[in-house]
Amino acid sequence: MAGGIVWLTGLSGAGKSTLATEVGRQLAGRCRLEVLDGDEIRLYLSQGLGFSREDRDINVHRIAYVARLLAKQDVLVLAAVISPYAATRAAIAKLSATAGHPFVEVFVNAPLETVAGRDVKGLYKKAQAGEIANFTGVSDPYEAPTAPAVEVRTDRESLAESAGKIVEKLVSLGLV
Amino acid sequence: MAGGIVWLTGLSGAGKSTLATEVGRQLAGRCRLEVLDGDEIRLYLSQGLGFSREDRDINVHRIAYVARLLAKQDVLVLAAVISPYAATRAAIAKLSATAGHPFVEVFVNAPLETVAGRDVKGLYKKAQAGEIANFTGVSDPYEAPTAPAVEVRTDRESLAESAGKIVEKLVSLGLV
Repeated sequence: MAGGIVWLTGLSGAGKSTLATEVGRQLAGRCRLEVLDGDEIRLYLSQGLGFSREDRDINVHRIAYVARLLAKQDVLVLAAVISPYAATRAAIAKLSATAGHPFVEVFVNAPLETVAGRDVKGLYKKAQAGEIANFTGVSDPYEAPTAPAVEVRTDRESLAESAGKIVEKLVSLGLV
Repeated sequence: MAGGIVWLTGLSGAGKSTLATEVGRQLAGRCRLEVLDGDEIRLYLSQGLGFSREDRDINVHRIAYVARLLAKQDVLVLAAVISPYAATRAAIAKLSATAGHPFVEVFVNAPLETVAGRDVKGLYKKAQAGEIANFTGVSDPYEAPTAPAVEVRTDRESLAESAGKIVEKLVSLGLV
């Protein structure tokens, strides 16, 4: 099976990593697979970078570069990264296409009220109190995808349901 | 075939990239393979980093992280990186072993006079004129491996010969 890049974008706390892990679980044994988690990979590849637009873009491009290296080895990469800027996502989609790898944009959508209400990492409270600068959705923009390959609503759908939609799409695209 | 990491260390101009490419050519079709070239990957993953010991170490750790991601997917990674510090190479070798991936240190050895004489990129002349700070072998240390898995002498051996020694080692280790 040829590789590809499944790019999960959405607000912090929308459920991107959880979803990537669940999709990985559902696809286990069916293809080569790797989950690239934005928070984790930032630690390894982008320490020292902040959250300005420029730094976010550099980080997104680094993750996309690693994703392409893996896709080239027939790995289906599930990348869970906030990646708030539409132009940057378009740029990495293009680089992926140029390299011959399918790029599947998944919009992990949950309203700001929901994710801020859950506030799993306690970050929204801090951001809303002005303690965190450049926080996506609060003090920094999030440009939602206008034509994602898949959109999941993690505030309304169960985890299995959202993951199922992604898996179904990947099957229909011949990626698994 | 399970993956692994072949780490080519040596002075700038010693022939690491050329050798990695040649080993890749000799192994084509025999296993999954990826060449990670220090100069190229620095551009993608480490722009903004300089050549202080700290920055070099971060860069080496980033490349090693990507190498482990690939090795996990049964890829034999040929990484060509100056990586002048023995302790840093020992650290990434350990991380690789912990992750269950063989790590094969290759010392791409050519005397300083030879590589400075060739001066393929014109950098030694500049470094010797004091125009480049932290230049390995001139104004920065190079700690040669004391017990590499393979040592090649690119000043005395042909490219095919040096590459052959590496391939032979990889075969004897069951990596190809």
